[in-house]
Amino acid sequence: MEVIKKISKMKEISKNWRREGLKIAFVPTMGFLHEAHLSLVRKAKELGDKTVVSIFVNPLQFGPKEDYKEYPRDTKRDLELLKNEGVDAVFIPEPEEMYPPDFQTYVEVTRLTTGLCGAFRPGHFKGVTTVVLKLFNIINPDIAVFGEKDYQQLQVIRQMVKDLNMDTEIVAHPTVREEDGLAMSSRNIYLSSDERKSATSLYKALLLAKKLISEGEKDPQKIKKEMEKFIHSFPFTRVQYIEFIDPVNLEPVKEINKPVLCALAVFVGKARLIDNMLIN
Amino acid sequence: MEVIKKISKMKEISKNWRREGLKIAFVPTMGFLHEAHLSLVRKAKELGDKTVVSIFVNPLQFGPKEDYKEYPRDTKRDLELLKNEGVDAVFIPEPEEMYPPDFQTYVEVTRLTTGLCGAFRPGHFKGVTTVVLKLFNIINPDIAVFGEKDYQQLQVIRQMVKDLNMDTEIVAHPTVREEDGLAMSSRNIYLSSDERKSATSLYKALLLAKKLISEGEKDPQKIKKEMEKFIHSFPFTRVQYIEFIDPVNLEPVKEINKPVLCALAVFVGKARLIDNMLIN
Repeated sequence: MEVIKKISKMKEISKNWRREGLKIAFVPTMGFLHEAHLSLVRKAKELGDKTVVSIFVNPLQFGPKEDYKEYPRDTKRDLELLKNEGVDAVFIPEPEEMYPPDFQTYVEVTRLTTGLCGAFRPGHFKGVTTVVLKLFNIINPDIAVFGEKDYQQLQVIRQMVKDLNMDTEIVAHPTVREEDGLAMSSRNIYLSSDERKSATSLYKALLLAKKLISEGEKDPQKIKKEMEKFIHSFPFTRVQYIEFIDPVNLEPVKEINKPVLCALAVFVGKARLIDNMLIN
Repeated sequence: MEVIKKISKMKEISKNWRREGLKIAFVPTMGFLHEAHLSLVRKAKELGDKTVVSIFVNPLQFGPKEDYKEYPRDTKRDLELLKNEGVDAVFIPEPEEMYPPDFQTYVEVTRLTTGLCGAFRPGHFKGVTTVVLKLFNIINPDIAVFGEKDYQQLQVIRQMVKDLNMDTEIVAHPTVREEDGLAMSSRNIYLSSDERKSATSLYKALLLAKKLISEGEKDPQKIKKEMEKFIHSFPFTRVQYIEFIDPVNLEPVKEINKPVLCALAVFVGKARLIDNMLIN
């Protein structure tokens, strides 16, 4: 497994693979890898001839009051995990090379980023699309695998690829959960053991929404209220948003009469957790 | 010469050339071609194995009160001219395919676009960078040739390519002028014969600046005043800006003690004309 720091080196390797007609599958990550990342990596290995994983905590996608500095990092362990999976190359660029002092070019998807997390994290998706475009230009992947846990991110990346006529195929991978349903996330490390118990409320609230809809409830507002009440019955929780949206354009749904995506963001202690579920 | 309307077809042709190891040189244009465009095309032919020219009046780079609708078009003549030059492919996409109804992704270079034309044409450079990125993704050129007449645009494109880790080499080509010094531009067609005479004032004012600097004048403000007085001595003229800037970062220069770029924009009748000169 090659561990690559320099952009020029990564480009060179990727070009050589391309020249040999090899299919490159790519998994972008911010490191501190867990089982869900590894399932994306396995998917990538299945789909491509060469697998590249990037580890880069992207400063551009964190707000000034967010957790860029505290974001957990453990590169040594990450590299061991990736080596065990048979990854071909890990790209770990330096922030200083990704964003030199005169850096000033940004990629922005507009409509899809106004709601959900976009409403509470101004600039976040602009940071995501900018870094993903850069990584795609450096690695030139045929395929890139993204998790459905970050559902809005997935749709935003798909829109960018379509709008900018990029050639990378975006593959979605289902959310990977702990045994009790908690969606895996590097940020779960922030949870104390008591908070960890409360963190299960997100998934349980989604199951509650599913149940209410299957029983015939069509009013998103009523379901939201039930979910909020349910989540707030757990200590340390504070709901940021609960939304019922169209799974493609992410517009809020007024009446539930076709498949709908329920997405939510909840603070549990200082950890901001997100989850979502497609409800048919 | 192939004339291509569809994005998918252009991508296919370009991919085949790439696969054969051929070097693609690209000249983006808005059509209504004149001798300056053709000199860019000749440069491209010199540098690449295959030459692609795009003709696309990009709605995204025109302000709501600007001349998108009136912008001159003559595709039939353009195609004849390009055929005579031995161009391999002309890409003429439809605005509806470039910008479908759900289009919502934009590329923006920030600092370099705040001054000069950027200050008077909000959104213009965002439109330029977005379309150029799209065209680069569709055509995947090894080289792209831009004219120095649009000097700010050239620097903005260079910055975008660098910041986003793109692989296309940007080649600059010197401004091509009429016999009396007027920089060639499709917008010169807007000039009446009287206005056409006044349009020579831009180049003459640049020569005046050069003369004053060679005589030892170091104060940009004083030179600007002389230039403005000179230009306004021609009928139908209205200076929009005259700036002395650093040729790389485009920052205004306070004292002229190294090579400086003088750039200006002047309305002559309803035609907005620009020009610039590097003064050593």
